[in-house]
Amino acid sequence: MHKLQVVKIGGNVIDDDLQLEIFLNAFHNVKGPKILVHGGGKLATDVSKKLGLETTMIHGRRITTDDDLDVVVMVYGGLINKRIVATLQSLGCNAVGLSGADGNSIRSVKRPVTSVDYGWVGDIEEVNDLFLQSLITQNLVPVLCALTHDGKGQLLNTNADTIAAEVAIAMSRHFETELIYCFEKNGVLRDVHDDQSVIEHINRHEYDALKMQNLIHAGMIPKMENCFRALEHHTSKVVICNSAFFHTPGHPFSTITL
Amino acid sequence: MHKLQVVKIGGNVIDDDLQLEIFLNAFHNVKGPKILVHGGGKLATDVSKKLGLETTMIHGRRITTDDDLDVVVMVYGGLINKRIVATLQSLGCNAVGLSGADGNSIRSVKRPVTSVDYGWVGDIEEVNDLFLQSLITQNLVPVLCALTHDGKGQLLNTNADTIAAEVAIAMSRHFETELIYCFEKNGVLRDVHDDQSVIEHINRHEYDALKMQNLIHAGMIPKMENCFRALEHHTSKVVICNSAFFHTPGHPFSTITL
Repeated sequence: MHKLQVVKIGGNVIDDDLQLEIFLNAFHNVKGPKILVHGGGKLATDVSKKLGLETTMIHGRRITTDDDLDVVVMVYGGLINKRIVATLQSLGCNAVGLSGADGNSIRSVKRPVTSVDYGWVGDIEEVNDLFLQSLITQNLVPVLCALTHDGKGQLLNTNADTIAAEVAIAMSRHFETELIYCFEKNGVLRDVHDDQSVIEHINRHEYDALKMQNLIHAGMIPKMENCFRALEHHTSKVVICNSAFFHTPGHPFSTITL
Repeated sequence: MHKLQVVKIGGNVIDDDLQLEIFLNAFHNVKGPKILVHGGGKLATDVSKKLGLETTMIHGRRITTDDDLDVVVMVYGGLINKRIVATLQSLGCNAVGLSGADGNSIRSVKRPVTSVDYGWVGDIEEVNDLFLQSLITQNLVPVLCALTHDGKGQLLNTNADTIAAEVAIAMSRHFETELIYCFEKNGVLRDVHDDQSVIEHINRHEYDALKMQNLIHAGMIPKMENCFRALEHHTSKVVICNSAFFHTPGHPFSTITL
């Protein structure tokens, strides 16, 4: 089986033009089949503000109203996705930007309303691995934004970390798949205030112990759950790192294992 | 050679949710390989206004400033393109939305500054017919928005009529290509105020004669030039019609010939 790298970048890279350029240069130099997944960063919030929209957050999660959905479709699917694709193309990387609606690449279902109505948020049902594989076979590099669709004409806002994990899982049918989460820290930290305290290897047992001691930062919990889910479903390797990992030899990072 | 239909829809369809849905239903029912090209409609202007941007027009053409480019990338490449793709997917049509940067599908060059600096406007240099053909071979339906790229990382705003013509020309290497322009009128009219005065067949000679008599509406001139350019470069058939042509049997339309 060939190796496939699924790389997810977050807001810290996307919001900083220079960082993004350095990262995309390094990503372009990654050999072999690869997929990029990007989040939204602050741009969606900035555009919402300029449009006079209020962002509604519940438990740290954005509630996606009708207007918010238009903004994320514009910013994730338009501005950020097309900028990344144009930059990759300028480097000679044959990128193709996709929402989950394009080629029916990711079908989801609107999250059921329980105590919270998250609005136009989609939980992934199916990744179209054959479509993504066909693009990769043509030496194309899929660039996925954090948008999915329900197959009934509705676009939905979907967490980019979850998209990356589900894509890695689905692509494991065809490739030996590695999932690499880039974020603002250098990896999973023993001390959230010390970026040098990277835990080089962490498994579920160690993670649970740290979580019990409240040593895992709240924002890390869903990311770690995505890591374990990917590992439990045939993803061969999962890494959490800073985007600098891609262009700095010897940069620390965390490898997640079961 | 198989037949390929390149259909361009304009603002009158895009700006009206019901019209768009009816059109997309009819487009879905078009048999065989097809490509959809869409313009921007009023949505870009609406978003610009909400963001407090002024639209600069010279000789009826939008000047694309830095901010304007962001808006068109958001609205054409994001909001409109992804809505159309999600709707087509819901109908069972395997659409994939593309800017010219995606898969390097349309490379252009920034329009040289002469008496007018049009800003971030691109004139098409090359259509990637092999990429579009590969999508069509996989039964995908490319949905192109009015954005191109210069291959150096710059996205550019490009007239959708011109994109449709250049795509039809490039695809004529692989298909017997028909170019169909849908707009607000029923076709080329003898009297711009009488939508029943459709000229069923018009050639270059007749067009030139009408233009000399000032009987061609100014807005039609670039569209007609695109039609003739397509016909001069291997496009087998060119039609100008209202989108109702697709769902109303016997609806009038104009066939353009050399």
